[in-house]
Order: sequence, then structure tokens, then C-alpha cells
Amino acid sequence: MKITILTLFPEMYEGFLNTSMIKRIISKDLVEFKIVDIRDYSIDRYRHVDDTPYGGGAGMLMRVDVAHHAILDNATSKTRVLLTSPKGKKYTQEDAKRLVKEEEILILCGHYEGIDSRIEKYCDEMVSIGDYILTGGELASMVISDSIVRLIEESISPESLKEESFEDGLLEYPQYTRPVEYDGEEVPFVLTNGNHKEIRRFNLKNALKETLKYRPEMLEGRVFTPEEEKLLIEIQEESCEE
Amino acid sequence: MKITILTLFPEMYEGFLNTSMIKRIISKDLVEFKIVDIRDYSIDRYRHVDDTPYGGGAGMLMRVDVAHHAILDNATSKTRVLLTSPKGKKYTQEDAKRLVKEEEILILCGHYEGIDSRIEKYCDEMVSIGDYILTGGELASMVISDSIVRLIEESISPESLKEESFEDGLLEYPQYTRPVEYDGEEVPFVLTNGNHKEIRRFNLKNALKETLKYRPEMLEGRVFTPEEEKLLIEIQEESCEE
Repeated sequence: MKITILTLFPEMYEGFLNTSMIKRIISKDLVEFKIVDIRDYSIDRYRHVDDTPYGGGAGMLMRVDVAHHAILDNATSKTRVLLTSPKGKKYTQEDAKRLVKEEEILILCGHYEGIDSRIEKYCDEMVSIGDYILTGGELASMVISDSIVRLIEESISPESLKEESFEDGLLEYPQYTRPVEYDGEEVPFVLTNGNHKEIRRFNLKNALKETLKYRPEMLEGRVFTPEEEKLLIEIQEESCEE
Repeated sequence: MKITILTLFPEMYEGFLNTSMIKRIISKDLVEFKIVDIRDYSIDRYRHVDDTPYGGGAGMLMRVDVAHHAILDNATSKTRVLLTSPKGKKYTQEDAKRLVKEEEILILCGHYEGIDSRIEKYCDEMVSIGDYILTGGELASMVISDSIVRLIEESISPESLKEESFEDGLLEYPQYTRPVEYDGEEVPFVLTNGNHKEIRRFNLKNALKETLKYRPEMLEGRVFTPEEEKLLIEIQEESCEE
């Protein structure tokens, strides 16, 4: 898989590309990153890429010709072109699963002050990573890339990821490691006694409990197993007793 | 304002802290970043910070004692302590506006494989930047920091940001810059004719139109001005004609 990122801040990606997992996947030739400086497609020798908006207003907009030339020069007919934008569809894990199947992705990073909106027709989709305003699309492009690369890692070492949140529609159950007692709080006994059937049940119950508490909307439309239904009744009874 | 980040990957932040806006705000002493390597609080000379989970399961969990000591050593009674977590409250622009008022924020980056869940009681809040799985909390901590630092920038140069998406409850209207014609598409004439009253009306109408099209839920509960109501009727009529 190839991920190309068009940005005005290529130096922002160094740390990201050098983190352990990303680096490992790159070194295994499972993903190739190309970070492209949009200024390489500037219209003049001063490396200008933006201009003042028609109709007035503060700030400078990235020019459509510059951004489009950068896309043309880095995309092929196989490339899925994304634009990070506040009006994009909200990015979710489902999108990560969909995009990891692409051969090539290109992400055009939205610009702090905006891009000439004519650029939209050259992009396959607009994506937003959340309802907050960022100074640019760079962090969004890293978030998207990270979520995708993680799935490539999963495909080569599935056991390490199977209990992650969202993957089976539940939040992860609380986990504990040494020390067994810290600051007055002990690891639940059942986790230390080696009864794997009990442990599984305890963890499933707590995953349901955590999801009910923190993200109840994740349970909407879920088809519960008989075991899960029984655990939900237990959880309800316990909450009434509290 | 001071933002402290506890992470296992301090080198990931270099690029972020050196981007133009963040750098400018730091150089003006408006924000101070402290990136802390959690391994400095490891339990042994091998710099171990994690251990196997009780009850079995793949992966290693960050130890509660290590993470807690890192918090204790870097937080004061004034510090708002955040933990990035999939079960956290969904982070929005409202949170950025709330957090920018804090004197000190500390963000403990969630760990790929998880943290001993006893850490939660030492954190003031858990935050999630979206419904997707990342390899760690580092990108989330940058997203949160970026959204906050941007508001500090706004407070010193308000004119550059006032038309941003979400700020007035509407998406931004489409913007255009030179060239006036590109690939067969022209900048709307009204934006080039200098009639500021018409331009304002055109832009407001398009902001409403874009929001209706891409993020209709943003309009729920909105109290429309008489002008906006009139424009909404126009938009509806035009969409029927199409």
C-alpha cells in the first residue's frame, strides 16, 4: 500500500514516520509513505501557493491550480484521493477498514485558512476526524494514516489486536498488571486465580459494563448472545443494589 | 498556559512543536510545552514501564505505579489531568474552549496495548478524539494541544479566525482565490464585483447551504435570524427546481 500526503509542512511527519510501529511496517515494505511539499508546485519562484480570497476576508487561500497540480503529479487512476475538511464525513474505524483495502491513498491536507473550494471536485472524498478545529490537516492525515497502518500490522500479527475497543462493538474491559495492590486498590481476585472460564466471563461482563457506562450508543442495534443477555441482567441488578 | 504531555514517544512531538503557529505561540511565551518520557519513571534500570496483564491476554500493559508517579511528578493542584482513551468523552470544540482557560493541562497518552485501569482515578477526565483506533495517544494529544493553542492564537489575533467552521454554528462558505477561471470553472461573479452587501448575503447563503448538505445536524436547535430564514426558503426553492 502507498500513502501519499500533500502538505505545506513536510517536516511535521518525521517523528510520526519514525515511531516504532509505523517504522516497522515501512521496513517490511508493507506500506510506503511519500510526503510531498505542496510548495514544489508553487506558481512562482517565491514558492507562493496561496492568494487572497475573492469577496474579501482575512487570510490567504491555497490556490486550486497549485493543489490540483500536486494531486495530478502524485495520483494515478488507482489512487483514492482524500481531502481533510471540517465538512467531510466523520472518519470512523469503518473508514479505516475500507481504506486499508486501497492500493494507493493520497491525502491532501486542508490548509489553515482554507483552499479554493474548486479543489473538491478533484477529490474522491472529504473526511473530518472530529468536531474540533485544527490549524491544518496534517494531524488529521497522521490520524488517518495511523489507523490504517495499524490494520496492516493487525493483518500480520492478529493476536495482539483482537481485544481492542470498537473491534467487536464493545469497549475494552479494564485491564490490570503488576503490582497486585497499588495505593489501596487491588487487582480483582478472579483475574489472578487462573480459572480461564471465569476470567473470560468476568472480562466480557466488564466490557459490557464499561460500554453501558461510557458509550451506551455503541450497544444500539447489537444482537446480544444469550450469555451477554444474562450478564446484562446481572449488571442491572447490581446497579440497583448500589 | 502550560501543557505537559506524558508519552513513551517524546521524539514524535518535535515536528509538531516546530510548526509555524505552535512555534510562534511558544516564542511569545503564551504556552509552554513539556514533553515527558514516561520511561524516566520506570521501575528498573532496564527502563521497563509495562508488564503482562493479569488474567492473560496478548500485549503488555503500562503499570499504574509508573504512570501515577509520572503524573505526580509533573502535575500540581492546579493541573487538569487528561487521559486519552477510547472510552473517553468525545472531544469537541467546546472542550477546546473550556480547556484553554486552564492554567495547566497534563495529557497522559494512552498506550497501544493499554494502561492498568487503576490509573483512571488519578485523571480528571478521559477524552477520545474520535471513533477510530490509533496505535497510541500521541496523535490524540497533539490534536487536543493544537485545538487549544489555536484558540490562544485567536485571542491575540481574532480577525484571522472568526470565519472558521463551527465557530458560529455553520460550516464555512466556499472560498475562491485566483485564478478566476480554472479548468472550466469560474469564481462566482458576485464575489468579484465588490458589492459588499451582496457578498455577505451570498456567503451566508452558501454557509447555510453547505451546512444543510454536509452537516445538517449542526442546524438542530439553531435560532435562525429573519435573514437566514429567508435564505433557507430560497435554498429550498432552488433545490426543488434542480
